[in-house]
Amino acid sequence: MSDAKLGTVLSSLSQVARQLDVLLSDKPAPDASCVKLNTNENPFPLPTVIMQSAMAALERQYLYPEDDNVSLRQAASEAYGVSKDQVIAGNGSSELLGLIYRAFLVPGDSVAMMSPGFSFNRKLASLQGAQFVEVEWGQDHSLPVEQLLLAPAKNAKFILLANPNNPTGTFVPVADIERLVSQSDRMIVLDEAYVDFAPDNGLHLINCYPNLLVLRTFSKSYATAGIRVGFGLGHPEVIGRLRNLQNVFNMNVIGHAVGISVLGHRAAYAENHKHIKHERQRVTMALSKLGFSVIPSHANFLLARVPAGQEGSWWQAALERQKILVAFFPDAGLENYIRISIGTKDEMDEFLEAASDIAGTAKETIPLCRPSAAAASALTNR
Amino acid sequence: MSDAKLGTVLSSLSQVARQLDVLLSDKPAPDASCVKLNTNENPFPLPTVIMQSAMAALERQYLYPEDDNVSLRQAASEAYGVSKDQVIAGNGSSELLGLIYRAFLVPGDSVAMMSPGFSFNRKLASLQGAQFVEVEWGQDHSLPVEQLLLAPAKNAKFILLANPNNPTGTFVPVADIERLVSQSDRMIVLDEAYVDFAPDNGLHLINCYPNLLVLRTFSKSYATAGIRVGFGLGHPEVIGRLRNLQNVFNMNVIGHAVGISVLGHRAAYAENHKHIKHERQRVTMALSKLGFSVIPSHANFLLARVPAGQEGSWWQAALERQKILVAFFPDAGLENYIRISIGTKDEMDEFLEAASDIAGTAKETIPLCRPSAAAASALTNR
Repeated sequence: MSDAKLGTVLSSLSQVARQLDVLLSDKPAPDASCVKLNTNENPFPLPTVIMQSAMAALERQYLYPEDDNVSLRQAASEAYGVSKDQVIAGNGSSELLGLIYRAFLVPGDSVAMMSPGFSFNRKLASLQGAQFVEVEWGQDHSLPVEQLLLAPAKNAKFILLANPNNPTGTFVPVADIERLVSQSDRMIVLDEAYVDFAPDNGLHLINCYPNLLVLRTFSKSYATAGIRVGFGLGHPEVIGRLRNLQNVFNMNVIGHAVGISVLGHRAAYAENHKHIKHERQRVTMALSKLGFSVIPSHANFLLARVPAGQEGSWWQAALERQKILVAFFPDAGLENYIRISIGTKDEMDEFLEAASDIAGTAKETIPLCRPSAAAASALTNR
Repeated sequence: MSDAKLGTVLSSLSQVARQLDVLLSDKPAPDASCVKLNTNENPFPLPTVIMQSAMAALERQYLYPEDDNVSLRQAASEAYGVSKDQVIAGNGSSELLGLIYRAFLVPGDSVAMMSPGFSFNRKLASLQGAQFVEVEWGQDHSLPVEQLLLAPAKNAKFILLANPNNPTGTFVPVADIERLVSQSDRMIVLDEAYVDFAPDNGLHLINCYPNLLVLRTFSKSYATAGIRVGFGLGHPEVIGRLRNLQNVFNMNVIGHAVGISVLGHRAAYAENHKHIKHERQRVTMALSKLGFSVIPSHANFLLARVPAGQEGSWWQAALERQKILVAFFPDAGLENYIRISIGTKDEMDEFLEAASDIAGTAKETIPLCRPSAAAASALTNR
């Protein structure tokens, strides 16, 4: 094969695409026997009525999905009390985030995100050749409104904010968000992925402020991460352009059927949400007894500071050896934390048992501060 | 709501996004009682074994889909006899087309497509702010290789070519495509959506030429348009960058399950493909007797020139009044054609009966050349 020809082809790529790494290696699929508490899923089966909708959709799956997600957007507009022109439906909110980046950013632009935040956004900014600016949360995880009215956030094409926030699980009053949206002329993208586990939401603000875009997903509170259903809600002038930019048939017929059915049966999840809030409290208390310091959470996960003198990555590896997967973030300031999703009672019992074991071992093997470099290497195998 | 604020927000959009129309109105869903022969679906149910795979995937749908479509790409690599690094999996080939446009085109660039071709490409070019160049097929729908080596195709970032072609259904020898790929230094995107109804395919060429990208879809020959499964096959250096550009979790778990299961049971579609080729021949002959001139097709549709003195749009409307949907293209040169998908025997019987009725009526009411403007308006209601 001609190398010169390959070089010519690669030189036809856009500058941003040319600089992308080639993904060559594949991560192996995670061990299905593990207790999976690392990506904030909600491990409960579909309610029967929703499962039946999905199976019915399979019967006519040889037809293309409905254009522009009309029926799903109609169902969302009724459930959320907004007009259909204020709704875009996505293959998960991740697709919608991608569209927002494409609509607003060209190489050289900048986007601002509250930090720590959802790290996927860094990748999306790099795909647009845009600068990614991180603004730290204020005292006690508050929203630093005044700071967000100044540079560098003032120069960003939009500002990203999650409430409740991921990975902290913290929640800021909607009044603070309204103050920001009202005083800023930047687009504020408010990711409410975890809002059903929180005390309040900011959706009503889209009727007052054209510079607010709210994102919702069914992956967390409606337990359908594998189906990919998300929504963007905002001003029709913005939503209508995002829909125009969106690829045709972005969701399949199962996404449509499950999305519409969930919207019609949200009450079926009341017990699920009650369970998660209850387990969240129980695990918080149990972890505290083990020496963890847990940030009070308004989401379906906990960000927990591991016992003094230990590291988050060490804990993640120790739990993984016991077939428990939790998340660790290498970001500055998060080195001593792990994030634990709230699953079923059995899963949380397994996690707590493993954590208790590890806490006991850790006390024996690393009584003072932290394992030596050699010991750490042996223990974590990374 | 502040209009000034809206103006500021809209001015934050990229130049291309700012110029997009706002999609405000929604097309009503097509009447489900119609015989749908307008978008080249393949109206047969999933084989039982594949339906079972889909239902099994619904059981664990609360988990996120597998990262980077690893298992599906592995299955495709085995089925197509290429390496996994040569495969990208998409939410339909439409997603992959969109990725290719994003990877290669920035505002001011150009892309070339054989014309007539798949009109969706015009939209994709406009979303990148790129110029869309159409190059006409040669004598008897042949590939004008020499012309494609010169400007304007020579200046395009890539050249699009479908084989069999849509909407003509024509097929060019793979040797002609190899000649183009070998002599051109442009990326050639070869859309083989309809290849399973044709005598040959060009997939093996990806092992020889880094400037070839082949697209496949399961929407046509594997009757899963509603699930959205497509593949791109090419050089790992190109495929790896497209995968990096692709959004996370682009396919849902049903897309993965159905895709893998179809790849493992392609023989289950042999009868289906035989049926479609048989009906294609039967309908071609029946339409010829009604005064149509049908282009010999290698796909699951027919492009038919309506009887002399009549117009394609008139026929489309007349058929729609009899609840038969076919496609009409307003493009120059296609004014006298309709495109008819090949469905079940019953559907094709209904179509032929309606066509026969209309042909009889047309002869009575417009014996000379074409209906008067008033009569046409009354007849077509548009």
